[in-house]
Amino acid sequence: MKKSKGKLQYSLAELTKGLDVVIQGDPECLIDGVCTIQQSQIGRITFLNNPLYKKYLPETSASAVILLADDASECPVNALVSRDPYFTYAQIAAFFDDRPTPKKGIHTSAVIGEHCEIDKTASIGANCVIGDHVKLAAGVVIDAGCVIGDFSTIGEDSYLHANVTLYHKIQIGKRVLIASGTVIGGDGFGIAKHKGVWHKVPQIGSVVIEDDVEIGANCTIDRGAIEDTVIEKGVKLDNLIQIGHNVRIGEYSALAGCVGVSGSTVIGKNCLIGGGTGFAGHLTIADNVAVTGMTAVTKSIRMPGIYSSGVGGLLTNLEWRKNSARLHRLDHLAERVKTLEAALAELTERKKV
Amino acid sequence: MKKSKGKLQYSLAELTKGLDVVIQGDPECLIDGVCTIQQSQIGRITFLNNPLYKKYLPETSASAVILLADDASECPVNALVSRDPYFTYAQIAAFFDDRPTPKKGIHTSAVIGEHCEIDKTASIGANCVIGDHVKLAAGVVIDAGCVIGDFSTIGEDSYLHANVTLYHKIQIGKRVLIASGTVIGGDGFGIAKHKGVWHKVPQIGSVVIEDDVEIGANCTIDRGAIEDTVIEKGVKLDNLIQIGHNVRIGEYSALAGCVGVSGSTVIGKNCLIGGGTGFAGHLTIADNVAVTGMTAVTKSIRMPGIYSSGVGGLLTNLEWRKNSARLHRLDHLAERVKTLEAALAELTERKKV
Amino acid sequence: MKKSKGKLQYSLAELTKGLDVVIQGDPECLIDGVCTIQQSQIGRITFLNNPLYKKYLPETSASAVILLADDASECPVNALVSRDPYFTYAQIAAFFDDRPTPKKGIHTSAVIGEHCEIDKTASIGANCVIGDHVKLAAGVVIDAGCVIGDFSTIGEDSYLHANVTLYHKIQIGKRVLIASGTVIGGDGFGIAKHKGVWHKVPQIGSVVIEDDVEIGANCTIDRGAIEDTVIEKGVKLDNLIQIGHNVRIGEYSALAGCVGVSGSTVIGKNCLIGGGTGFAGHLTIADNVAVTGMTAVTKSIRMPGIYSSGVGGLLTNLEWRKNSARLHRLDHLAERVKTLEAALAELTERKKV
Repeated sequence: MKKSKGKLQYSLAELTKGLDVVIQGDPECLIDGVCTIQQSQIGRITFLNNPLYKKYLPETSASAVILLADDASECPVNALVSRDPYFTYAQIAAFFDDRPTPKKGIHTSAVIGEHCEIDKTASIGANCVIGDHVKLAAGVVIDAGCVIGDFSTIGEDSYLHANVTLYHKIQIGKRVLIASGTVIGGDGFGIAKHKGVWHKVPQIGSVVIEDDVEIGANCTIDRGAIEDTVIEKGVKLDNLIQIGHNVRIGEYSALAGCVGVSGSTVIGKNCLIGGGTGFAGHLTIADNVAVTGMTAVTKSIRMPGIYSSGVGGLLTNLEWRKNSARLHRLDHLAERVKTLEAALAELTERKKV
Repeated sequence: MKKSKGKLQYSLAELTKGLDVVIQGDPECLIDGVCTIQQSQIGRITFLNNPLYKKYLPETSASAVILLADDASECPVNALVSRDPYFTYAQIAAFFDDRPTPKKGIHTSAVIGEHCEIDKTASIGANCVIGDHVKLAAGVVIDAGCVIGDFSTIGEDSYLHANVTLYHKIQIGKRVLIASGTVIGGDGFGIAKHKGVWHKVPQIGSVVIEDDVEIGANCTIDRGAIEDTVIEKGVKLDNLIQIGHNVRIGEYSALAGCVGVSGSTVIGKNCLIGGGTGFAGHLTIADNVAVTGMTAVTKSIRMPGIYSSGVGGLLTNLEWRKNSARLHRLDHLAERVKTLEAALAELTERKKV
Repeated sequence: MKKSKGKLQYSLAELTKGLDVVIQGDPECLIDGVCTIQQSQIGRITFLNNPLYKKYLPETSASAVILLADDASECPVNALVSRDPYFTYAQIAAFFDDRPTPKKGIHTSAVIGEHCEIDKTASIGANCVIGDHVKLAAGVVIDAGCVIGDFSTIGEDSYLHANVTLYHKIQIGKRVLIASGTVIGGDGFGIAKHKGVWHKVPQIGSVVIEDDVEIGANCTIDRGAIEDTVIEKGVKLDNLIQIGHNVRIGEYSALAGCVGVSGSTVIGKNCLIGGGTGFAGHLTIADNVAVTGMTAVTKSIRMPGIYSSGVGGLLTNLEWRKNSARLHRLDHLAERVKTLEAALAELTERKKV
């Protein structure tokens, strides 16, 4: 999705070159940025993906809207008709992403270890500390303040934002993005209690992050106890996620913020995990499983589907207390039903007699 | 609340100068520190705010107690009578806060980008990395190891503790406090699945932190997808809080630790959010809403009030399993009641006949 | 558990020297690493601790298995018979832990404050920033990028991994391990609302981490408001844990990832806290309490035992919605039972008449 950026304006024709999109309107219309459909502006392009926002379409002041064919007739301005408007938006928005270009080369303040293999096209920011025997492939960018442990390797075009920490022997694939504050390769939580005292169990495995993975800010991914912890190709992790030792996350799964995955749990491919969800350890989760937010996943899931835990939903605190009281009176209710059944049985008997 | 600190002892008269407080006892009594009411010491000052702790008042060995007028008659030592004892305590405790004064100026090891505007009264700690076009106003303090992205601006008297990361174009207001390890402006979790593969949606917005906001340690606040993520004036965030892209937190709301707010959710003013609570995305929460800890906020809240989710409360694991079993037998119980109703109806019919 | 490491192979006799283990088989068998029992390899040693994995024993290709006496007869290869196989494994695995040895001495890029007392055997990594009046005892290792605040002290043989932040006046005991990204001593969440505006309550206490504590990555441990926050001897904290101000965690307790402990809560000794659990503030938890994962601990726990909250367990989303509906219909069911009781009473009365 790399674009020849740097211009202030692009025509719709330029923006859609090579994309699977049909222009309805003026291909020469100039666009200078993106906007949301509810806060649209002249000169900007927006998109309509979620039907809830369709009400904003007739009165949009954007200069172009990316949308489905079904919505095109109601578009009062230029339309880019797409089978997947959100994906098309992602492609077009890249033209207007004004994030700074990382500085080339190795900053003089960076500390580089011995026996490293650093491609001449890799960039290393100020005050980074690179251990010994580290390999950085072509196009790798390491922003300021990162620390990379000995023997770690980072594949082509991967990007570590500022203040990321990799421990030793971590393997990062190609085109991996890691946001600031994330720590990869800390010791797994392996402890053995002996005579009342915890002893540390050495964590000898490592972490493998496969190609095209994106990891958010302040996540923690522990190294394996014996085998490696593995994040498979194309997985997307949001912020503040904890991945325990020996975990494996399957290809193209996406985990929202604040998820915790306990040690040795294996999550399948193409799973969608809602924010705040926690997984117990040593579970196996099938492919194509969705879990709603803040679920306690306490057992393995063998079949695709949507899963949840807890009960009751969001309520006022008053109703919530009432619900708990009801639940706790259930045994009493069951006793009363039992008494009724007995009384009725007796009555019925007597009648028969 | 800045005080002329540095002395070892202050008289009650000095401590209360300008405060809305009445001294009951000796204004010349010297105080050299603060203490809790349950572990009080001679020479120290304490406060009584929570009625649960009133039992400690008669036997306190503190030299002075900040309290409400109603409690003053029971105070065996000097009393500072206040309408808001906790607030008065906050004002007085500032005299005894012995945190180190940040070193003035820019440390020689800091790396400063080009075209920055750094006020001559701003301080930058060792090994900081400041990007290009960064503006730091008067009195700003940046502790050691911080990384500030290009085009970010920080308002007067704001204080970034060690190892904070700001991405590019982040706007920080005046008197903002940011604790260590916090990351502001990482990309929001915007991903579009196309033909089985996740594609990144550019996150072009930024983050605006308004005046007088305090942010705890290891938080993550993502930049907006199109518009900015906004933390309004006077908001207080505890540690390990995740704020998704496009979120807005209203003025003077306070969020306890480990809260997660999913993308595009708007929280009103003066809200109180308990620790560990999670918000789904695209919600609107009214002003003056309180949410108890560990609640799953799954829908918008239109009215002020106290809200909760889940049911059952804290129990022994045995009772907890019993509760689940009860819940799962509810259908069976309902069936039995239905049977009873039918049987009784039949009996009653027959009687009539 | 320190071993003379560095060799590629060790005989079983060497590995078990001084351990409470009986060798069944060839003491001269050479071992070059560890493996799991389900993915065993020749030349490696593994262990059998969890009965669930016993099925892998008969066909193991490991060269030795650490196990209980009861399982020894079924072991097809060399066995190390132990009363505590997991603990024995921990001792033996240390031989094969190939983590890099930290570099000796103080890196030239580290910035050291004034009046520090740094033992000549302590190591300080690249780009560390050490404040004034800091004391580092013998054998202390500070990895790259750490920031240590003024007047902090670190005891013998403690190890801070890269990018750890300690605020001022923090006391760290002996043999303490702190993983990357962890922040110790940030201000507690002390705020007082006065006339609609939050005011900061100075956090004057500190943090005491006692001997043999291990703290995971990206944790936050706040300094006390008045007294210190204390993590007692031998406590083990996993990653992304939040410890509020004034908290005390008792000896040899272990907290799994993503736990949050609100201010002033005291947790006893030898407790086991499941991942994602949250504690309200001002609670007292007895010794020897276990809490299952993702529990909301909303009240004090006076007796040892296992505790949980919530109800319902993991379900498909469909069943989960049904459970909530059932719960909300409970009042209706209770009304129906009441009606039945009245009707039956009336019927019975009439019969008597």
